[in-house]
Amino acid sequence: MGPRPGGISPEQALIRKAFSRLSEAVPGAAGLVDDAASLSIPPGFDLVVTKDLVVAGVHFLPHDPPELVARKALRVNLSDLAAKGARPGAYFLGLALPAEAGEDWVLRFAAGLEQDQREFGCGLGGGDMTRTGGALTVSITATGLVPSGHIVRRHTARPGDLLFVTGTIGDAVLGLGLQGTPAPAWAGALSDDDRAFLIDRYRLPQPRVGIADIVCDLASAAMDVSDGLAGDLALMCAGSGVGARVVADDIPLSAPARAACGADPEVFARLLGGGDDYEILAAVAPAHAEAFARRVEAAGVAATVIGEFGQEPGAPSFVDRSGRALDIPIQSYSHF
Amino acid sequence: MGPRPGGISPEQALIRKAFSRLSEAVPGAAGLVDDAASLSIPPGFDLVVTKDLVVAGVHFLPHDPPELVARKALRVNLSDLAAKGARPGAYFLGLALPAEAGEDWVLRFAAGLEQDQREFGCGLGGGDMTRTGGALTVSITATGLVPSGHIVRRHTARPGDLLFVTGTIGDAVLGLGLQGTPAPAWAGALSDDDRAFLIDRYRLPQPRVGIADIVCDLASAAMDVSDGLAGDLALMCAGSGVGARVVADDIPLSAPARAACGADPEVFARLLGGGDDYEILAAVAPAHAEAFARRVEAAGVAATVIGEFGQEPGAPSFVDRSGRALDIPIQSYSHF
Repeated sequence: MGPRPGGISPEQALIRKAFSRLSEAVPGAAGLVDDAASLSIPPGFDLVVTKDLVVAGVHFLPHDPPELVARKALRVNLSDLAAKGARPGAYFLGLALPAEAGEDWVLRFAAGLEQDQREFGCGLGGGDMTRTGGALTVSITATGLVPSGHIVRRHTARPGDLLFVTGTIGDAVLGLGLQGTPAPAWAGALSDDDRAFLIDRYRLPQPRVGIADIVCDLASAAMDVSDGLAGDLALMCAGSGVGARVVADDIPLSAPARAACGADPEVFARLLGGGDDYEILAAVAPAHAEAFARRVEAAGVAATVIGEFGQEPGAPSFVDRSGRALDIPIQSYSHF
Repeated sequence: MGPRPGGISPEQALIRKAFSRLSEAVPGAAGLVDDAASLSIPPGFDLVVTKDLVVAGVHFLPHDPPELVARKALRVNLSDLAAKGARPGAYFLGLALPAEAGEDWVLRFAAGLEQDQREFGCGLGGGDMTRTGGALTVSITATGLVPSGHIVRRHTARPGDLLFVTGTIGDAVLGLGLQGTPAPAWAGALSDDDRAFLIDRYRLPQPRVGIADIVCDLASAAMDVSDGLAGDLALMCAGSGVGARVVADDIPLSAPARAACGADPEVFARLLGGGDDYEILAAVAPAHAEAFARRVEAAGVAATVIGEFGQEPGAPSFVDRSGRALDIPIQSYSHF
């Protein structure tokens, strides 16, 4: 509570200083001087909406740089949009800030958002900022566009579809492990560069925004891998009423992740049960598989077939190249 | 982390149990089994989007009933939509829950949402639920529809417009005061019913959803009063580049608020600087004023002219019925 010359509170002044510029790409945001934005959806498109919260101490470390917190919070939402085949547009930001996050923190946070807005082509539509007596919390609601009726669902995989995954799996969970104490035994097998790579994969997801159109055009079903490949694929199977057979040896691993698995064979199963990959799992009909692979690679993203969906509903099975069943627990990160 | 039979985590199971039913009115929510919703916007309409966070210990008390927390969190967003002339549609929910908020808390929270969805005609489109080591935080992003290009802005008031306010002002700040210790001196002048009325006005806002269409059709500018009438009106004036003259005696007060002012003349200024009214301030051209008043009253909401906007930009002035200036500080609730 304080005097507000010209009606501007400290809260409003900070919003203007930190965030107004980020709204310039969203005409209906009215420069953030109002309580709501107006989005005009072009004819022939649907608006895809997703919402992910990140909380200090749960999704990031309280002393992580604010730029990185901002970028991670935005990117986990952009990853969901990409997996649904949607190009990002306006996003909305809720910030609950503890007392120690002052103006400097907010300005650095905004700088992180600005950098990613440029990279991914989205803009701030509005939001809310408040104090909290608890953990710093960032709540982003992101919107994007798909041709009407063409959101790509996770529960629409069909028997016979090939299972693609982008990028590499398991880096982030290793990167998180490297930040714990004591250091895991396999850490000794890694170079400094390997360790830096894995930690970066945890701290800064790479949402596959550039392939959203391809997912929309060619995938039968898709989702982003955020809670671990094994559990997320199980959700896709359960929702679709199908099964899946995954050739574990075909799951794409980065060289550092391979080194960790080499040092400790137990690591492999953990890569599939950990979270924060933010790669895209896509079911693609065989007739579209070649085009999908070609277009995704042309967009600069690796795409690997790791298995296929089958008629028999159930949890996915994991086999080696000789077809022998592997014991991969179907589990994944859950907050509850 | 735990085994997930059929790929369902405890988190997903709770989401289904508590929230899936709330999404039935939103076809593109896909029963909450996916990471995003798809909203189809009818031709000729824009989507209005607003986002307000509420945090335990800041906006509500940690031991408030979960039903009430849910309803307040939703209603503060619906209030913003109504003030922008938008009818509510899908809303998106982010929940950060401390360990002590278990399944029972979530089910009661969902029951509160369900009750208000029915009352206000909206539905759950999606969201995210996570644990927090800090304060329980509810982040709602609400959407609504207005005819294309017709969102009602706060910065478009014109000189000569009449200033309307709905309902009564200041009840909520008194209701909050009554819950503090020691009890304020004026509390002694109130009956038990008076006190219950004021506390209820704090705990459960009444968003003016039923007059959204009227605001859209007839107001030049509008906003909801959430941080205090004096400061919110100052924002409206500053944004619009106009001034305003308010006849303080015309500001509508409930009988309990009048009793509190009678017991302590200092209370009046605090009613105008406190928050949580969730009434609508609207600028209405004189030619539309009669229709506005008539249609708002027909919708069962009180509408009172409390002043008018003037050419000279600046902070609003408050006068008594004889035109004598009153000293009302232009301040309002700010978290920063």
